[in-house]
Amino acid sequence: MTNIKDLAQHCGVAISTVSRVLNDHPDVSEETREKVLRAVRELHYIPNTSARNLVRTTSDTIALLVKGVNNPFFAKLIKVIEREITKQGYTLELHHMDTSVDELHVGAQLANDRKLIGILFLGGRFNYSPEELALINVPSVFCTYTNTFGNLNDSDYSSVAIDDKQAARFAVETLVNLGHRRIAILTDNDDDNSISELRFQGYKDALNAHGIAFDPSLVACTGTFSDMGAIYRTTSDLIERDNSFTAIFAIADLMAIAAIKALSDHGKRVPDDCSVVAIDGLELSEYTLPTLTTLVQPVEEMGLTCAKTIIDLIESHGENKQYTFETVLRPGGSIRRLDK
Amino acid sequence: MTNIKDLAQHCGVAISTVSRVLNDHPDVSEETREKVLRAVRELHYIPNTSARNLVRTTSDTIALLVKGVNNPFFAKLIKVIEREITKQGYTLELHHMDTSVDELHVGAQLANDRKLIGILFLGGRFNYSPEELALINVPSVFCTYTNTFGNLNDSDYSSVAIDDKQAARFAVETLVNLGHRRIAILTDNDDDNSISELRFQGYKDALNAHGIAFDPSLVACTGTFSDMGAIYRTTSDLIERDNSFTAIFAIADLMAIAAIKALSDHGKRVPDDCSVVAIDGLELSEYTLPTLTTLVQPVEEMGLTCAKTIIDLIESHGENKQYTFETVLRPGGSIRRLDK
Repeated sequence: MTNIKDLAQHCGVAISTVSRVLNDHPDVSEETREKVLRAVRELHYIPNTSARNLVRTTSDTIALLVKGVNNPFFAKLIKVIEREITKQGYTLELHHMDTSVDELHVGAQLANDRKLIGILFLGGRFNYSPEELALINVPSVFCTYTNTFGNLNDSDYSSVAIDDKQAARFAVETLVNLGHRRIAILTDNDDDNSISELRFQGYKDALNAHGIAFDPSLVACTGTFSDMGAIYRTTSDLIERDNSFTAIFAIADLMAIAAIKALSDHGKRVPDDCSVVAIDGLELSEYTLPTLTTLVQPVEEMGLTCAKTIIDLIESHGENKQYTFETVLRPGGSIRRLDK
Repeated sequence: MTNIKDLAQHCGVAISTVSRVLNDHPDVSEETREKVLRAVRELHYIPNTSARNLVRTTSDTIALLVKGVNNPFFAKLIKVIEREITKQGYTLELHHMDTSVDELHVGAQLANDRKLIGILFLGGRFNYSPEELALINVPSVFCTYTNTFGNLNDSDYSSVAIDDKQAARFAVETLVNLGHRRIAILTDNDDDNSISELRFQGYKDALNAHGIAFDPSLVACTGTFSDMGAIYRTTSDLIERDNSFTAIFAIADLMAIAAIKALSDHGKRVPDDCSVVAIDGLELSEYTLPTLTTLVQPVEEMGLTCAKTIIDLIESHGENKQYTFETVLRPGGSIRRLDK
């Protein structure tokens, strides 16, 4: 296998020069840098980081533990986190787990087995107890969720999330302000101590604030965030049992897309016969017909904050913090003012 | 930390019984099994696989090295592969890399650093040379691509893919059979020695077989598979420079969705004013308006074959094989017969 001496000989430069290029030092001419990097490619040079690792006492590996895999919002967030973690000189190990498994147990196991220096949990429960969190003996950050239903001390955990209840309330009020009063909700679940329940509560808060009676027959629980077939069928059932609603609040973009299709197949056009608003702000839903009106989560900033927070905890034993981000309404073609 | 003895005491059963439950042996009553599993959760028991790993001479880790992250087709494939690898008792480590980086160099580095026992490459070049492949010193499988433009011996590599050229030809012939002759193509690239070039060749073959002259002005290269904004702009440019085409073949579903939006914004309805056909068969594109006519890749079977092939290579030093899967047309609402 090619080593650094071979590279130096091939390029006719000193070994120390090759080393400077490989370690990205500034004091190398552009010409020499290019020559060395070309040789790296042509001679298939593989830096021996295993050797470097031998003299380290700990690993440089941060795990990103993702709950559920088919979520396009997560896909973007993962990309941002991975870019930043790698840029800061750490290794990101990506692990996916089923939504039926508990993330703290999987995380504890991973930290144990793989000598992790930190864990980013992407998706999780909002109700950890101190005893449960104690399972995780490395720095961690809860990404896209926080401890709303749990009893952790603020000084004991870090989180990066939107205010799910507030965002849902804002989405529903957008519909109310357009004259809608029969507003259905499409949610994964209404009592899961998680994102779904919070967004469901925000929906009820908005109705309540505007003197609109809550009607359980307008609640459609899909039991899933990503199975579009199931979401389509749940929406179809809703349409078949209630013909009076003029708007739907879907708690995620992907749900809204499946709902719009179900409405269309039942002869209801969006927004003419029914308005639809959602939360996420996927790139995809800017390209559907109609485009989706949705509350955009600031995925770039959230991803950067996740990465910076875990690195700060690892490097400086920084204080735990809970970050809350604002969503921004992205107007689309899926809502309209209700005629009197 | 809870150990197996604590579990046994808590449940009032023998340690050997707990061990049978944890190792999923059949000869335990359902009642006992449930009692032990409940205790595992309640006492937060974490099995000590680190101890097990110490006596192993090699790891049990297979890496899945994914080129590009925002591809929903890959998301499904990853899920299938991960489920099967885990079910067979191996650990899957997921790594993402940028499309600008060479997968063989990253793979060689990973195999080196992480003591991998195998690598699944998800996405890659179709033109490896034997010298390049020699960098990878563990069993490997090329997933979703093969060696069409390279010079490897069949006995030296394993691959799981569709016949990209044939699928593209079939997609375009579907349009030709409906009377279309001015057919545009939306492709990532036309000379990248990869999927895009093969599908572009299939497009040209179909035209040629039906006596339709190839017109370079109907080729729109996006330079991306997943940046919907860029795909939208490329399609808009195409529409603005040529008003004669009656159909578009998009080489991926996500491209087709962005193209349909661009057509709509230019006053062209799908399928009335323009037919659109694609390759992938995402679940998503069954729920867009109109639904997409697309060639479905058998993602379940492909994922299972990827997992089984790498395990067979690892466990039995099985022979290398190249698997080719058939795509199936999923009729949607995005194409129509051209009026004379």
